[in-house]
Amino acid sequence: MIELADVQAAAQRIDGVAHRTPVFTSRTLDGLAGASVHVKAECFQRGGAFKFRGAFNKISSLGEDVRARGVLAYSSGNHAQAVAIAATLLDSSATILMPEDAPVAKAEATRGYGAEVVLYDRWTESREEIGARLAEERGLELVRPYDDPLVMAGQGTVALELLDEVPELDVLVAPVGGGGLIAGCATVAKSLRPEIRVIGVEPEAGDDTARSLAAGERVRIAVPRTIADGLQATEPGELTFAVNRERVDEVVSVSDAEIVDAMTFLFDRMKLVVEPSGAVAIAALLAGRVRGERIGVVVSGGNVGAVRFAELLGRA
Amino acid sequence: MIELADVQAAAQRIDGVAHRTPVFTSRTLDGLAGASVHVKAECFQRGGAFKFRGAFNKISSLGEDVRARGVLAYSSGNHAQAVAIAATLLDSSATILMPEDAPVAKAEATRGYGAEVVLYDRWTESREEIGARLAEERGLELVRPYDDPLVMAGQGTVALELLDEVPELDVLVAPVGGGGLIAGCATVAKSLRPEIRVIGVEPEAGDDTARSLAAGERVRIAVPRTIADGLQATEPGELTFAVNRERVDEVVSVSDAEIVDAMTFLFDRMKLVVEPSGAVAIAALLAGRVRGERIGVVVSGGNVGAVRFAELLGRA
Repeated sequence: MIELADVQAAAQRIDGVAHRTPVFTSRTLDGLAGASVHVKAECFQRGGAFKFRGAFNKISSLGEDVRARGVLAYSSGNHAQAVAIAATLLDSSATILMPEDAPVAKAEATRGYGAEVVLYDRWTESREEIGARLAEERGLELVRPYDDPLVMAGQGTVALELLDEVPELDVLVAPVGGGGLIAGCATVAKSLRPEIRVIGVEPEAGDDTARSLAAGERVRIAVPRTIADGLQATEPGELTFAVNRERVDEVVSVSDAEIVDAMTFLFDRMKLVVEPSGAVAIAALLAGRVRGERIGVVVSGGNVGAVRFAELLGRA
Repeated sequence: MIELADVQAAAQRIDGVAHRTPVFTSRTLDGLAGASVHVKAECFQRGGAFKFRGAFNKISSLGEDVRARGVLAYSSGNHAQAVAIAATLLDSSATILMPEDAPVAKAEATRGYGAEVVLYDRWTESREEIGARLAEERGLELVRPYDDPLVMAGQGTVALELLDEVPELDVLVAPVGGGGLIAGCATVAKSLRPEIRVIGVEPEAGDDTARSLAAGERVRIAVPRTIADGLQATEPGELTFAVNRERVDEVVSVSDAEIVDAMTFLFDRMKLVVEPSGAVAIAALLAGRVRGERIGVVVSGGNVGAVRFAELLGRA
């Protein structure tokens, strides 16, 4: 388990390096949700998503000799960019194991941040096995995308900043993939404000955490086919699930069409560029699956290319 | 002429009503521009553009009896929404004269803010004449989109906020349509920082201000055909030109293709939704037409629908 103090320590490590992202409000959104809604816009984080927080917290905590040998990450994209940026800032080097069907823009951006990208087939190969082999061969330290206390604690700084700016939230909503973001955020929220309700949101096809909470143990599903490419986890993390089963009140799900609607709303009415995975919490709100009076919503990332965005819009 | 004190008075009137919009930086943009660039994001202003500042400053300065009769505006869109919102906030009512070819989203949004929308044919009818007739018939007060000292002063609060946050700019770049935004901004910039260079940006097809500055008097051009629908003025305002000929150092222009490139850059790399008119200053920067060390750029609005954005992208 991680605790509030772990997140506070992370906040100190990332201070002045990570962006303190803005919180937006919209009268239109308030009207649609029947609530006062506060949107924490992690699309403006370094690398375009919240992932930089956890990656920097983790890599900055490694010993100098470990950092000098380099770090390894497997990721559908945002974690990759985050690790690449953090490694460069911390005088380390990053090797990124990325699925062949990841968006090209993410691979290019990751290389642009100075990382070496190694591709694999997500449908037939195990990233864990390939990652373990690479780590051994090259003496690299694995930076897990979520199942690591330092990564979870880093992601929790999102909620720490949001509650610092808007203390009186009665609901906090965040996307759930592997569960690191919501684990960190729930830890902060339940510590600072025990009466708050913490709600996770998954894509319909990737409801492994909802199923796991219902079953009382981690359930594995097939690789979900969804436009929310950052939320394609097949089962909750071991460490994240231990946190989330205690601290997350509910996990709801949204369809791909609802995600596109939310992206369009965020574009048209709030002028925010948000990727599919980043829009699920707003999608849940707009679909009426979240109720409250003062709702904090994490918009977790904005890494969708303009061309891909236009395609998604045309498909809806 | 307006002076710094007029803008400071406007700042007091809009305080707590208008948004103090965020200023963004991007390492990628800095690299491309070879400068430290600070982007004032008026896409996050109420109504989605800077226009609210001037409209609220103007309408709040009217006598109560005038406000009670209502206000009138003619506008391709953003000024309309701004006047509608400001009128509602100030217990007035707004009638908006809008060209038939204005984006549907803008007409709908304007009605949504409680205004009555009256359409006219921009290619055959004079908005000034129709506006004057409506004002007389209904006893309405005309709120001009730019050629009014109170409107210019309101728009100048953009530069007041930007220079408050980033005092050491050596260049300030802003879009030029009728010239109200840059008149207010140039007044602030030259007062607070006499050595600053103020650069305006027009669409290539709508270079009436550049031509007028070259001629030393106001020059009228045909209605420009450009995707920058907010910058389709046919000649500079009388009052704005008097300010701009004294305080604007240079006006450069950008093509529609360069505008789309800038919109795409702002989307992909900065996660900002910016309309064509709002992106011209970034377009000029990316096209190498603006040089400096510490450059302030006004991104003036974000009112482009997601579908229209996708269309523009496909056209480029």
